[in-house]
Amino acid sequence: MIYLDGNSLGPLQKNVLEATERVVIDEWGKKLIKGWNEENWMNQPLTVGNKIAKIVGASENSIVVGDTLSIKLYQALAAAIQLKKKRKIILTDTGNFPSDLYVAEGLIDSLDNDYKLRIVNPKDLISSITSEVGVVMLTQINYQTGELYDLEEISSVAHKNGCVIIWDLAHSAGAVPIELEKSRCEFAVGCTYKFLNGGPGAPAFIYVRPDLIKNFYPILRGWLGHKHPFDFDMHFKKSETIDSMRIGTPPVIQMSILEKSLEIWSDIDLEEVRKESIKLSELFIKKVEQKCPDIKLASPRNPSRRGSQVSFFNENGYAIIQALINANIIGDFRAPNIMRFGINPLYNNKADILTTVDMLEEIINKNTWNQEKFLKKKQVT
Amino acid sequence: MIYLDGNSLGPLQKNVLEATERVVIDEWGKKLIKGWNEENWMNQPLTVGNKIAKIVGASENSIVVGDTLSIKLYQALAAAIQLKKKRKIILTDTGNFPSDLYVAEGLIDSLDNDYKLRIVNPKDLISSITSEVGVVMLTQINYQTGELYDLEEISSVAHKNGCVIIWDLAHSAGAVPIELEKSRCEFAVGCTYKFLNGGPGAPAFIYVRPDLIKNFYPILRGWLGHKHPFDFDMHFKKSETIDSMRIGTPPVIQMSILEKSLEIWSDIDLEEVRKESIKLSELFIKKVEQKCPDIKLASPRNPSRRGSQVSFFNENGYAIIQALINANIIGDFRAPNIMRFGINPLYNNKADILTTVDMLEEIINKNTWNQEKFLKKKQVT
Repeated sequence: MIYLDGNSLGPLQKNVLEATERVVIDEWGKKLIKGWNEENWMNQPLTVGNKIAKIVGASENSIVVGDTLSIKLYQALAAAIQLKKKRKIILTDTGNFPSDLYVAEGLIDSLDNDYKLRIVNPKDLISSITSEVGVVMLTQINYQTGELYDLEEISSVAHKNGCVIIWDLAHSAGAVPIELEKSRCEFAVGCTYKFLNGGPGAPAFIYVRPDLIKNFYPILRGWLGHKHPFDFDMHFKKSETIDSMRIGTPPVIQMSILEKSLEIWSDIDLEEVRKESIKLSELFIKKVEQKCPDIKLASPRNPSRRGSQVSFFNENGYAIIQALINANIIGDFRAPNIMRFGINPLYNNKADILTTVDMLEEIINKNTWNQEKFLKKKQVT
Repeated sequence: MIYLDGNSLGPLQKNVLEATERVVIDEWGKKLIKGWNEENWMNQPLTVGNKIAKIVGASENSIVVGDTLSIKLYQALAAAIQLKKKRKIILTDTGNFPSDLYVAEGLIDSLDNDYKLRIVNPKDLISSITSEVGVVMLTQINYQTGELYDLEEISSVAHKNGCVIIWDLAHSAGAVPIELEKSRCEFAVGCTYKFLNGGPGAPAFIYVRPDLIKNFYPILRGWLGHKHPFDFDMHFKKSETIDSMRIGTPPVIQMSILEKSLEIWSDIDLEEVRKESIKLSELFIKKVEQKCPDIKLASPRNPSRRGSQVSFFNENGYAIIQALINANIIGDFRAPNIMRFGINPLYNNKADILTTVDMLEEIINKNTWNQEKFLKKKQVT
């Protein structure tokens, strides 16, 4: 298999099964309830968060892991609006992942006052960041086109206008170098099953700039966000650390799998990964444009404006992707006509790219895609 | 090991490792992204929900699985207050699990209007359910004393007063027979890692009475609660089924482990389990009172008012439990002085009970508990 879909779900690493068996048999199976203390289950959200912090340029104890990206974004947005109480505009753009917009709509509808979600075209984004806006909420890499935002630059524009900024790093954590702390952005959220290879349904993460943790109350209050969870107080007392962003009992088994999956990052230089990703992406674009002129680039041509993903337009994109998958080359499709290819140099190489282009050429020249079995749509994540 | 802590974390079943290896190696490892369709990951929250529905007396397609209990309760409460817009009192009691109260406080604080959480003493509960109350929010089995509420009776009192009722089944699902549908309760939530043995951090579940699903909007809106997630609409359109209670990407690996863990329930008669649990609990109480007169019953004496848990008071409870654990008999402790013992006839028998009582007697008579290593408190879940 040639796997070009790590932007959706990263692959299993060899050593992860062993970690899975360990947590299931030796920890849950043999230690049962004692695992919470003896196997450090209780602190995993922070210890795993610290591993992610190193990958996204955050300081120690500024990230916790848990829940899903939507929940972590809900927490971040609910906190962000408390930091900017008088400004009622939440700004985002049409390049944001749709469910990020749903999360914002749901929160705003519940608040029974004048908050508004303003969704602008990406080309109007910078000029829309004004002193009227309270919170800017963006996804760093567009899930369709792979367009990459300059996190430090846009954070700086937000701050010059007195706005709080929240970044969704779903497609960028583990794919491109990120300097969260340097950007001074207030909040970031991300998922761990794409370029961090944490496995299907791996938990999400949230970053809060350390100086802000005491400036808001958590809207989603679970027992593990309490200052002293084992006091079993009748009232919530917020933890004064990033633990206040924890909610309920963490998914211990997925957390252990994620922790093991992250082990390789102590040996990875993300700058090197990025360079190699650009090299492979440039080759991919050049060869596709040479050999398949009907397939048009949907991603930015400038590699510094592109994440670790290359997208193309074609009106038969869905069927072409199905024909590719049938040939054991995995990309994916997003409506209405986008073919997406994630490039991860940790497991993709030059030969993969060349084989993929050859197969694309064959599928188009021989009309292989034009078959009932490839044309009929079914859901693909 | 004698394990009397299944009310906190249920044990691993023999066949679960195989299911774990299957989802990790054969599904994630070999199928990668294709697992979403080919292995039914996408529908797991509902297929697993249907297995739980049979255990708690709910109809097909009325339960979905995901997230944590706190998140599911937040969804239920946010929906419930929409059904009773003019009544601003949310009623609960001091026997509720503290984090359920935190969830309610967090939601109320965010709503910027007049909702109030009224927390009464359990003895005043019934008389406090009045036409002033909008939502009654209760945990069916008290986590400290094991006191069991009559779900149908209290639901009926709530309905006579025009209230909506939410039940937290954390300690009752899989422990006692429950007839959710018959009770006509509006919402229920529960966890799956206690008497349902789904593993540490296994996802939670939510039940919505089927006739109500169209009467409220979800506050936590993720892409999987959308009517057509793969349309990637810019605006949320609520699914018209229980799927609207889904939020983000489900924890596939924990979901598969839970699904396998639930398989045994097709052969279990919960009425039989309950009878046996009462038999073992009655024996336990009788023998403890005979042999350890300083250990006082904290649970209701009437077995029909008690869940599948027996609790005792003792001022040295913490150290006694530590000494028991040291002898490989696992119970747990809750502040200030409660020793808890979960009884699950699926893996506990008469010999376990008798051995536990003998060991308790020895620990007390020989003052075994009175040692530095048992007295020093550490966190126990």
